[in-house]
Amino acid sequence: MARLLESVPNFSEGRRPDVVRDIVAAATASSGVRVLDWSSDPDHNRSVVTLVGEPEAVLEAVKAMTSRALRQIDLRVHQGSHPRIGAMDVIPLIPLTGLTMADAAAAARRLAAELAAEYDLPVYLYGEAATRPANRDLSRVREGQFEGLAAVIGKPERTPDYGPSLVHPTAGATAVGARGPLIAFNVNLDTADLGIARKIAREIRESGGGLPAVKAIGLSLAERGQTQVSMNLTDFRRTSIGEAYRAVADAAKACGASVVESEIVGLVPAEALLEEAARSLRLSGFRPDQVLELRLLDEQG
Amino acid sequence: MARLLESVPNFSEGRRPDVVRDIVAAATASSGVRVLDWSSDPDHNRSVVTLVGEPEAVLEAVKAMTSRALRQIDLRVHQGSHPRIGAMDVIPLIPLTGLTMADAAAAARRLAAELAAEYDLPVYLYGEAATRPANRDLSRVREGQFEGLAAVIGKPERTPDYGPSLVHPTAGATAVGARGPLIAFNVNLDTADLGIARKIAREIRESGGGLPAVKAIGLSLAERGQTQVSMNLTDFRRTSIGEAYRAVADAAKACGASVVESEIVGLVPAEALLEEAARSLRLSGFRPDQVLELRLLDEQG
Repeated sequence: MARLLESVPNFSEGRRPDVVRDIVAAATASSGVRVLDWSSDPDHNRSVVTLVGEPEAVLEAVKAMTSRALRQIDLRVHQGSHPRIGAMDVIPLIPLTGLTMADAAAAARRLAAELAAEYDLPVYLYGEAATRPANRDLSRVREGQFEGLAAVIGKPERTPDYGPSLVHPTAGATAVGARGPLIAFNVNLDTADLGIARKIAREIRESGGGLPAVKAIGLSLAERGQTQVSMNLTDFRRTSIGEAYRAVADAAKACGASVVESEIVGLVPAEALLEEAARSLRLSGFRPDQVLELRLLDEQG
Repeated sequence: MARLLESVPNFSEGRRPDVVRDIVAAATASSGVRVLDWSSDPDHNRSVVTLVGEPEAVLEAVKAMTSRALRQIDLRVHQGSHPRIGAMDVIPLIPLTGLTMADAAAAARRLAAELAAEYDLPVYLYGEAATRPANRDLSRVREGQFEGLAAVIGKPERTPDYGPSLVHPTAGATAVGARGPLIAFNVNLDTADLGIARKIAREIRESGGGLPAVKAIGLSLAERGQTQVSMNLTDFRRTSIGEAYRAVADAAKACGASVVESEIVGLVPAEALLEEAARSLRLSGFRPDQVLELRLLDEQG
């Protein structure tokens, strides 16, 4: 079975195309990884790259990107509207095929240790890789940003997990974390009553005591006379697409409404849909490596 | 989107391991294809190889295998219990990701023409690539086998689609076809009454006027006190896994029985399960290339 890790490194350059291309090229030139997407935002002065491969290959690619980012980005002169603490600002690792969240967190620790050692860089672990509960939340790690970090990095609650308790003069600090793949999943209802969609969203989202790893809002689809429960599933292994769908359908029924259709926006890991097929067919003993295309990825890995 | 064609060439050698390895090696050495499986049967004196890749690469690999098979197999001295007409006996092409059956049939015609031209070999089209209705059935194409073919190859109804109307002295003839991927799918019932499983199998299979592209038999799972409807789905685009499952479940209900669980034996194309997930979630506008792993195959293709 193929072991596939995704990483979505965010670095603090979105205005100089030559620099962005040079950093992205460090990933595209790495063997064993595929760059699926990348984009720059000049207002944020920040770029985001999506790459996938075997864990070792992904870590090597991200280290190569970090090396180039540190050579060419000086946070003392960096301005942008998006919060950031470092030149290579955030590196999330996402377990896809054949990996657990614990595998991704272990990879995050290894990457953090290596970046700290190689570049004398303070590195924080966040998300599912966090060692302190407060640092599960990335916004807490980034509090004060690059400019404010020097004043607090010596405090016990802000000590980096790896590297010196000293902000890197040009590169700041880096956050390395593990998280589930995010699935953007919307369910449309046959009612124009926005109150119903909002009520369902409040009920099912984690922050309202609903389903774990689910964020949800209610939206109006006025031109269709429908409403939508728009969700982000941040860990489909905790709440599956099917569980989210059925929670919305059940809550809608209780309000006298029903589901018209659903949609997945953007990419989705195979496993998130295969488990729904297996449930629907009552498949016993099904393994993802029975899927021909996943077997092929393995053969190529 | 990746375009993936599968081929499962059958050649008439299953006793001389060095010859089998040499022919298989022609596939494993071909660039752009993956050999997923191969096996030899000494009683049948026959070997079967499963390979997958982009259509062009698969055809090149199969031609390279045919070249080696023709050099090393002499049907005048071949004996085995399995019906055969040629050294490279049968080459089925199966559309997987991003290909239609029409694409696979077109690839079969191209391959048949090239093999006939290169080796002065009579080639028949069968299955979904057949030009004559009778030749859809492979057993009709192989009627009389190698030994009997010389006497009938001149008859209009047995004329090859490509190449001479003359049996190749050592290599006989070859059948090239297109077919759907075969899915082995079993549904277990909570009744020990074999009569019920057999009745359901008779009702749902194509030969009994049931679902297209479905073969089914009823079996006893005595040690569990259950029975099984054991199916081969020969074209999941005509009858999906979900349709077969629900047909069995409905027929069982009518007999007072119900489904315990189901199982897929061996490999299954991703699309066959994704469509069931899409149905179950009422997904609208879903495309297989939204699946991250399938996107990866594309990037590698």
